[in-house]
Amino acid sequence: METDRPDGHQSESQKNPMFQIFFILLEVTIVILYGIFVEFHYDPVDPNLPWTEEPQTEFVTGYPVLQDISVMMFVGFGFLMTFLRTHSWSAVGFNFILTVVVFQMYILYSGFWSRCVSDDHWDLKIQVGIETLVTAFYCCASILISFGGVIGKLNLFQLLVMAFIEACFYSLNEAIVFEKIHIEDIGGSITIHTFGAYFGLSVAFIISPKQTKGHPKNSSNYNSNLFAMIGTLFLWMYWPSFNCFLALNPEDRIRSVINTLLALTGSTTAVFITSSFFKKGKLNMEDVLNATLAGGVCVGSSADQIVYPFAALFVGYFAGFISCIGFERLSGFLQRKVGLYDTCGINNLHGMPGVFGGIFSAIFIGALTEDTLGFRVEDRFEGRTASEQGGLQMAGLGITLGIAIVTGIITGCILKLGCFKGPTDLFEDQVFWEMEEHQISNGYIPATTREIITEGIELPEKRHKKHRHDKEAE
Amino acid sequence: METDRPDGHQSESQKNPMFQIFFILLEVTIVILYGIFVEFHYDPVDPNLPWTEEPQTEFVTGYPVLQDISVMMFVGFGFLMTFLRTHSWSAVGFNFILTVVVFQMYILYSGFWSRCVSDDHWDLKIQVGIETLVTAFYCCASILISFGGVIGKLNLFQLLVMAFIEACFYSLNEAIVFEKIHIEDIGGSITIHTFGAYFGLSVAFIISPKQTKGHPKNSSNYNSNLFAMIGTLFLWMYWPSFNCFLALNPEDRIRSVINTLLALTGSTTAVFITSSFFKKGKLNMEDVLNATLAGGVCVGSSADQIVYPFAALFVGYFAGFISCIGFERLSGFLQRKVGLYDTCGINNLHGMPGVFGGIFSAIFIGALTEDTLGFRVEDRFEGRTASEQGGLQMAGLGITLGIAIVTGIITGCILKLGCFKGPTDLFEDQVFWEMEEHQISNGYIPATTREIITEGIELPEKRHKKHRHDKEAE
Amino acid sequence: METDRPDGHQSESQKNPMFQIFFILLEVTIVILYGIFVEFHYDPVDPNLPWTEEPQTEFVTGYPVLQDISVMMFVGFGFLMTFLRTHSWSAVGFNFILTVVVFQMYILYSGFWSRCVSDDHWDLKIQVGIETLVTAFYCCASILISFGGVIGKLNLFQLLVMAFIEACFYSLNEAIVFEKIHIEDIGGSITIHTFGAYFGLSVAFIISPKQTKGHPKNSSNYNSNLFAMIGTLFLWMYWPSFNCFLALNPEDRIRSVINTLLALTGSTTAVFITSSFFKKGKLNMEDVLNATLAGGVCVGSSADQIVYPFAALFVGYFAGFISCIGFERLSGFLQRKVGLYDTCGINNLHGMPGVFGGIFSAIFIGALTEDTLGFRVEDRFEGRTASEQGGLQMAGLGITLGIAIVTGIITGCILKLGCFKGPTDLFEDQVFWEMEEHQISNGYIPATTREIITEGIELPEKRHKKHRHDKEAE
Repeated sequence: METDRPDGHQSESQKNPMFQIFFILLEVTIVILYGIFVEFHYDPVDPNLPWTEEPQTEFVTGYPVLQDISVMMFVGFGFLMTFLRTHSWSAVGFNFILTVVVFQMYILYSGFWSRCVSDDHWDLKIQVGIETLVTAFYCCASILISFGGVIGKLNLFQLLVMAFIEACFYSLNEAIVFEKIHIEDIGGSITIHTFGAYFGLSVAFIISPKQTKGHPKNSSNYNSNLFAMIGTLFLWMYWPSFNCFLALNPEDRIRSVINTLLALTGSTTAVFITSSFFKKGKLNMEDVLNATLAGGVCVGSSADQIVYPFAALFVGYFAGFISCIGFERLSGFLQRKVGLYDTCGINNLHGMPGVFGGIFSAIFIGALTEDTLGFRVEDRFEGRTASEQGGLQMAGLGITLGIAIVTGIITGCILKLGCFKGPTDLFEDQVFWEMEEHQISNGYIPATTREIITEGIELPEKRHKKHRHDKEAE
Repeated sequence: METDRPDGHQSESQKNPMFQIFFILLEVTIVILYGIFVEFHYDPVDPNLPWTEEPQTEFVTGYPVLQDISVMMFVGFGFLMTFLRTHSWSAVGFNFILTVVVFQMYILYSGFWSRCVSDDHWDLKIQVGIETLVTAFYCCASILISFGGVIGKLNLFQLLVMAFIEACFYSLNEAIVFEKIHIEDIGGSITIHTFGAYFGLSVAFIISPKQTKGHPKNSSNYNSNLFAMIGTLFLWMYWPSFNCFLALNPEDRIRSVINTLLALTGSTTAVFITSSFFKKGKLNMEDVLNATLAGGVCVGSSADQIVYPFAALFVGYFAGFISCIGFERLSGFLQRKVGLYDTCGINNLHGMPGVFGGIFSAIFIGALTEDTLGFRVEDRFEGRTASEQGGLQMAGLGITLGIAIVTGIITGCILKLGCFKGPTDLFEDQVFWEMEEHQISNGYIPATTREIITEGIELPEKRHKKHRHDKEAE
Repeated sequence: METDRPDGHQSESQKNPMFQIFFILLEVTIVILYGIFVEFHYDPVDPNLPWTEEPQTEFVTGYPVLQDISVMMFVGFGFLMTFLRTHSWSAVGFNFILTVVVFQMYILYSGFWSRCVSDDHWDLKIQVGIETLVTAFYCCASILISFGGVIGKLNLFQLLVMAFIEACFYSLNEAIVFEKIHIEDIGGSITIHTFGAYFGLSVAFIISPKQTKGHPKNSSNYNSNLFAMIGTLFLWMYWPSFNCFLALNPEDRIRSVINTLLALTGSTTAVFITSSFFKKGKLNMEDVLNATLAGGVCVGSSADQIVYPFAALFVGYFAGFISCIGFERLSGFLQRKVGLYDTCGINNLHGMPGVFGGIFSAIFIGALTEDTLGFRVEDRFEGRTASEQGGLQMAGLGITLGIAIVTGIITGCILKLGCFKGPTDLFEDQVFWEMEEHQISNGYIPATTREIITEGIELPEKRHKKHRHDKEAE
């Protein structure tokens, strides 16, 4: 019975000083490389000289959008995953540190790979401006999606190593598909969502232990779902910022915003309808927390290309529908038949909608004509025709899937190495966080065995009965 | 006793497939009408041509304000209503779907009515830009205010039908008072708050069942009030965005921001003082959650007209004071004497402050002179004098009240029709949401009878006593 | 035993009508002084005349940043302090009213002192624009930091009086160090954080009663820490806005944003590493909630001066490291040896990082050369050399510390006067808020004695055992 006490939980990293050594070495390397390679896009300016227009435009068009995207990373992804009732601290805490470390690493990785891939700019210095910060958060999004597939099953050491590897290949893939293949992917259906989802699913497939199946702590409670709703709503509201930043001009930006909003309204209505079919008229909170966002994922690659508003609505309906079916049916099927345990259902929210987003972008771009655009299609795509660009979209999707799955499987195998010593208990905050008894006594069920969970906290009804028993006993 | 079990709750819509049929038909109609009538304000532009200034100005002046208003809808209104301890999921979830559906519908409704009312623009296409999105959220605000009056007493089918009807008449009223009567109402004290509140109160008056009186679940708990505080604060902080968007020029916008902030500080201080008088020195969380916002409501119609900062402060004090008295005394009086059950107190937060906001706007506008303005008053109001415009404000207020109350009563009667089958249990999430027992066991009291509520979760004190009893029994 | 009942808690201000009298007089004075002295920066403009560029620039560069800072005040500081499990309502509620009242007062105070200190502008009117609002929120930040040191130990009357005095001296200090000494302090390491922290610590040192030591309610629980995480994350994400607003030009603003973000990533990683050393591999939520923000505090004075990105990272590592050591070791030491009870650890989060931030600014500015800047250093600092400006930074830090500590001690003595009648119970919401029993029964432990806390809510394990006892008893 002693293991039920919080103190009974042995600390992960206590047994593993390699975690701290790895983390310190990583940060020392980062600060040294920043010292050598990273500089500001803008140097200080003499305040007595007249201003130039450019930095003000960069600030006013970029900064509010950057801040929205920042909220999506820390509050959006962080709180979305707090639905795990005994893993909420780790959800928001590990989400926090992973975002921060990936942000630091991406600036170096992307500077490295973009120089390797392209031939024309061999300036060794990496210049950091608002756009660099936004693309760094895009990389964080991809890694946090993968985190959603493995949350509860890896310790922080393993997560950091996963992020270290994944951010590297994310940046490589990004450099290949944008700078070599020249795909259009403004909101990252392909490069962010598809990559993150299938990398994460590959890792999850390799590392999920048998106990994951029907684990009693892989579940939510009343308040944890309300906390998760904070994450869902901030992701939903700021998704237009996520999908519009890279637009070539303000007209495209505004259209990206509207298309993203319409797609999100489409997926949200589709989910409320679909969920009520599966639950005999009731709604399932898991669907509402997740699948409502599928429209934003699916419209990502084509938010700036869609020229009719109803098409964005349609993409949203479709994405919400398949995502909801994924949560209600496909996840269970994959668990039973394939043994794929996907904690947050990233295949349903990011994987399938991301792949379909890539396919839709190929279709929408392939269907562009001088008539719909108002100018020559080749002027839009640096000389390529609509069907050529459509084909490149599919090529980019294929390459992304390939790199994500292969590197994901390799990463999973690395994380199973003995030196990492996975968590002793799944989906459990006490393994990672110092907790005193009074911190646990409210809003947290410190059960470590299935037996106690099954018995559960006594409902008033039971207590009522017991009360009568007590009286009789008296 | 079996009905205490979550499974015992029969699903609303299970018995009512008309809900799903209605919802699907609505969405199919919307996407078809979007296909025919809705287009983007900006078409794609050739990236090789030089930019125009206009869309960038629209983006940088409009988008950050739009995003603030979006947060007010989803997080602000959504979490404000989570104070109901056994209805928090429905509060935030139904708020979510209602906002989304009204957003979709408003763009069609407003396009339709503005063409009916005005004679000059008979272009059939509805162009969507940033301003359209903001005014769509204004409509959502009005419907969400009405939702606050009936929350817990209607099922999702009824709420959707209510939103379907209300959004139609909201748009009609908006078209009449702005395009025919030409009132000034930048922050919508009249068109948004007064309309939403009195429509909602009319519906609530008709549909509230007898059991609403003193219903044990129409109440909050410690954490549900903290969640509600998230809603309150985001509404408070972003209210300046709500009240400034429609300003004619940047000077008016900045003044609207400052006036709204000052009015909100006024209402907040007034509430803390007034509440402490009613509670013998203590504070009442319901007052703090709601009445603190009354300043933003009340200054809405005149945020861009007020030319002295102290006047905005005064409006805030007044609004906070009457709103707080409303929550402490008027709500109870209306329940006892009139049988009006207003779940969130929308009469106190939106109704009375909205009506007074309209009256204040008439006074402030009527008092404008060339001296205070710095230019001719007629130049401001398209040739009308200050007192003429003041009269129009009162006319707009009267028309809005009339349309809201009449259509609200009719809507209430429609919602009582047998085909809607209202909820089997009031203020209860389990009626609408699939819940497993472990989700309920924490942070949620699944009581359905008053008896259990009265006994409540055992306080340590009681448990302490029982412990002794147990020992004695041993 | 009766005192355990919520009703048993006597209301603070019930016995003290002076609270209400003070508050009403304060507000009446404020509205009168606003009427006499405060006017808008922009008057209404004739809508028929062409626009000027200036107000639009003020709006688009200022308003989104203002809104971020507003969120930091109300949600950031407010929720950060909800970690106290029986004081969450007071944390977020008192934070709310203090911010509002200080916001109102600062505009008057700063207008007064800046006229006293400088000779050149004797226009009696105080003009309010976006910048005034931002600097008012800066003052709020300083007072809220002090609030963090005394939360749970003062009633609302005492807090209002503290804010009334502190805002006065904050404004005086601000006028002295900016307008007389001409220090550089864009993000307020010196004027905001150091001032607020050492004023608050001085007050806390004087007023903390003996019972503070090891008080059972000075603690958190599972959900209260999740609410606190909302505060932490919004502070973290919007800190770049806090540190960039006052930049002289857009280039400096963008650099301030990047430096602040990098410093925050540095402190966050440093805290996760350092905390895991103290807790044998586990993490401490208190460290993660607070010390992760130290980078933003410490880089505040030099966010626009740092010309190498790695330097910002380094500042962050250092700040996170000392802040984490402060939470793990120094706080306990100061409690035991000095009797300094610092509820939220403001010395660790704002005090030490603030002082080091001032010192770093002296070093960074002192090290600036024409080579690193690209233009003459004297052009940057109105004719002063780098070392002269570095010396002024240290002078400003010293003056700020002196004013904060002296006025803080005096304020503490005033607050101990009998007329204020401090709270009857520490860290307890029931003293200040009307609470019904059903509001307490969930998510709140209404214990007033150590005994009950020690026994705590029964863990399932205990209940399990008791259940068997009950059965045996039967």
